[in-house]
Amino acid sequence: MDNETTKNLLHTRFVLGVVAGKGGVGKSTVAVNLARAASKQGFRVGIIDADIYGPSLRHMLPEEIPPKESPSSPGHIIPAVSSGIKMISMAFFCEGDTSTAVRAPFANGLIGQFLHKVEWGELDLLLIDFPPGTGDIHLTIAQEIRLNGMVVVTTPQEISLLDVRKAIHMCDKMQLPILGVVENMSYWQESPDREKMFLFGEGGGHRLCEETGIPFLGEIPIEPRLAQAADRGDDIFACHPSCNAAQVLDQVSHKLLQHLAWLEQMEGQYLKNFELVWQ
Amino acid sequence: MDNETTKNLLHTRFVLGVVAGKGGVGKSTVAVNLARAASKQGFRVGIIDADIYGPSLRHMLPEEIPPKESPSSPGHIIPAVSSGIKMISMAFFCEGDTSTAVRAPFANGLIGQFLHKVEWGELDLLLIDFPPGTGDIHLTIAQEIRLNGMVVVTTPQEISLLDVRKAIHMCDKMQLPILGVVENMSYWQESPDREKMFLFGEGGGHRLCEETGIPFLGEIPIEPRLAQAADRGDDIFACHPSCNAAQVLDQVSHKLLQHLAWLEQMEGQYLKNFELVWQ
Repeated sequence: MDNETTKNLLHTRFVLGVVAGKGGVGKSTVAVNLARAASKQGFRVGIIDADIYGPSLRHMLPEEIPPKESPSSPGHIIPAVSSGIKMISMAFFCEGDTSTAVRAPFANGLIGQFLHKVEWGELDLLLIDFPPGTGDIHLTIAQEIRLNGMVVVTTPQEISLLDVRKAIHMCDKMQLPILGVVENMSYWQESPDREKMFLFGEGGGHRLCEETGIPFLGEIPIEPRLAQAADRGDDIFACHPSCNAAQVLDQVSHKLLQHLAWLEQMEGQYLKNFELVWQ
Repeated sequence: MDNETTKNLLHTRFVLGVVAGKGGVGKSTVAVNLARAASKQGFRVGIIDADIYGPSLRHMLPEEIPPKESPSSPGHIIPAVSSGIKMISMAFFCEGDTSTAVRAPFANGLIGQFLHKVEWGELDLLLIDFPPGTGDIHLTIAQEIRLNGMVVVTTPQEISLLDVRKAIHMCDKMQLPILGVVENMSYWQESPDREKMFLFGEGGGHRLCEETGIPFLGEIPIEPRLAQAADRGDDIFACHPSCNAAQVLDQVSHKLLQHLAWLEQMEGQYLKNFELVWQ
């Protein structure tokens, strides 16, 4: 951790990574809505879209204030702001549909910029939306900053779990604590009086948690309004607060923030004991 | 293209890439079922799982015969065989849930092995299931072998289209001809008498094709039996041949093979004309 990182992330209370192993499971949807839910609860929230190859965060969280260069520190970036959430994404640095077929060292360089050169100011929670897979960018982030916890997103399908197990294995190897598993696209229920249809298999998230001992945080049903909100950059908590998916996301966010606060307390206790021992 | 590639892919009629930009849209499901459909039509089919970080092909297409080292050419691999389809996947070369958090040069080296060192023998169709994104591995494959065409898989959701446009842009830059777009998870229809539910948006694939002029190949409905077949390694064409998803996949495969045959004929004609001109 170099001085610049320490400087820009010094006033960040929690750093939480969102990983999935497999793409398309709704990782970014979960990350954005955790950010929105935490912000709604009064937390000062920032989010990094670390998906260099397919940044979708800017679309889901359209900025009111674009990012700009810091007037006081040339080369440093003041993040964009969307509904009070600070954010930075590759989408700001590549035009339209230009493919980001960038060789890995270049991608790692960009992530380095995001980690070191963004002036977050005071934050309670910084979310990092990891790219799918278990590759270079994951290693770079884990090496460069201290993550307080990871959330794993999966669908119930066995094929998705294959990759998620790899992501969990990667977190273990990097000694990143996994706070829990969120299952997305768990079922479809047309209306409360109709039965739940398990379109992509059933219970995969629960099985994974039983296998690994990781806490299960919640199952998000398939919800066309959630997909639509993502597509339009709308806030599901403002548009459809009572829909099942929004409620689960809100509960998951509460659980995670409680867990992080508990970890912080434990760590404070640990440091205090440590000091007592060494006094 | 070095001599070894030329040697091992010399007897392959068509090489077809399946790309998606975004993960989780069902790219591997489409690739595997195109392979199964083509094989059912009497084509000799091979498939490369180029998804180094999340290889799911072996799970969907479980082998009866595992890959082995060539007895005649040490260091060369005889591919695995599953239901008559030859295939090679990263899954054979990493144990269980071990994460493949490999730095990019190593990943590129592995793909090089798959392209150069696998003894495919005579093939009518070699499918390459690309990893999601538009990164290193795509560049490597495009540089090292000649692809006859690409198929693009998307879901109807706008967020998925964002990444797909990047993949299309990448194909254009690499001068890879795109044969068409397949839309997956287009809708859910519980039974023929019930209305179609557009769970992930509607018409995205068609809009993309109108925008880009790329042919639209078909829309695959959400089908729990397709997800289940993928999870179990079953053949949807054998288990549920009359389900809507299987029929669309069969039609898409027909269209693609016809198009490839037509391209081959055109190229033959072109080469003949070329020879006539230069005689």
